Amino acid sequence: MVAVSETLVPAELASLRASIDNLDAALVYLLAERFRCTQQVGHLKARLGLAPSDPAREEEQLQRLRALALESGLDPVFAEKVLAFIIAEVIRNHGVIAEAASSQSAKSRIDFFGLQRLVVAGWVRSPKAAL
Amino acid sequence: MVAVSETLVPAELASLRASIDNLDAALVYLLAERFRCTQQVGHLKARLGLAPSDPAREEEQLQRLRALALESGLDPVFAEKVLAFIIAEVIRNHGVIAEAASSQSAKSRIDFFGLQRLVVAGWVRSPKAAL
Repeated sequence: MVAVSETLVPAELASLRASIDNLDAALVYLLAERFRCTQQVGHLKARLGLAPSDPAREEEQLQRLRALALESGLDPVFAEKVLAFIIAEVIRNHGVIAEAASSQSAKSRIDFFGLQRLVVAGWVRSPKAAL
Repeated sequence: MVAVSETLVPAELASLRASIDNLDAALVYLLAERFRCTQQVGHLKARLGLAPSDPAREEEQLQRLRALALESGLDPVFAEKVLAFIIAEVIRNHGVIAEAASSQSAKSRIDFFGLQRLVVAGWVRSPKAAL
C-alpha cells in the first residue's frame, strides 16, 4: 500500500478533494450559524432560569435526525454520533453561560451592597441623590 | 432551575429552535454529500492501492479548517474536534472499503482457481472454449 503523499495525487482524487473542501467550508459556516443560535438559546435560558439541557427536545431532535439521515443516505448511527457530539458541546456552553450569568448577578449584588456601604459611610453620593 | 418541558416553550426559544432545526437539516444533507465524496475517494484509493489515511492531507485540512473557523466565528477547538471525529469515521470507512476490495479480489482469485479446477476435472466447459 502506497502513501498518497509519496505519489502524485491523481486528478480524480484531487477533484473529489476539491468538492470535500467546499463542503467543509459550508459545514463550518453552518456550524458557526448553529452556534450563534444556540448561544442565544443559552442566554435566553439563563435569563428565564431554564435548565441548560432539555431531554425531551433532544429526543425529538434525534428522531428527526434519524429520519433526515435515512432520507439523505447518511449512516444514521454516524449522524446520531455527530449530533450527540454537537449537543454535548452546546450543553457545556449553556452551562458556562448560566454560570457566567449567575456569577454576574452575584457580582452585581456585591457591587450594589458594596456601593450601599460606601454610600452609608458617606464616601460616595447615593446614585439616587444624583437624579 | 426549571426544565423547559415543564413550562410552555417561550416564543423566542421556539423560533430559535426552528432555525436550529433548519440548520441541522442542511448539515445532515451536506454531511451526506461529503460522505458520498469520501466513499468515492475510498473506492479510488482501494483501486489504486493507496493508503486509507493521508496525514499530509489531514494536516492541510486542519490548517484550513482553523482559518475557516476563525473567519466564521466558530470556536476553532470545537471545529477541529468535529473534523477529527468525521475524518476518523471516513478513515474507518476507507479501511472497510479497502478490506472489502481485497477480500473481493481474493474471492475472485478463489473463484477463478476453483473454476479452473472444475474445468480441469471436466465438470465445466472452459469459459474460453465458450467464446
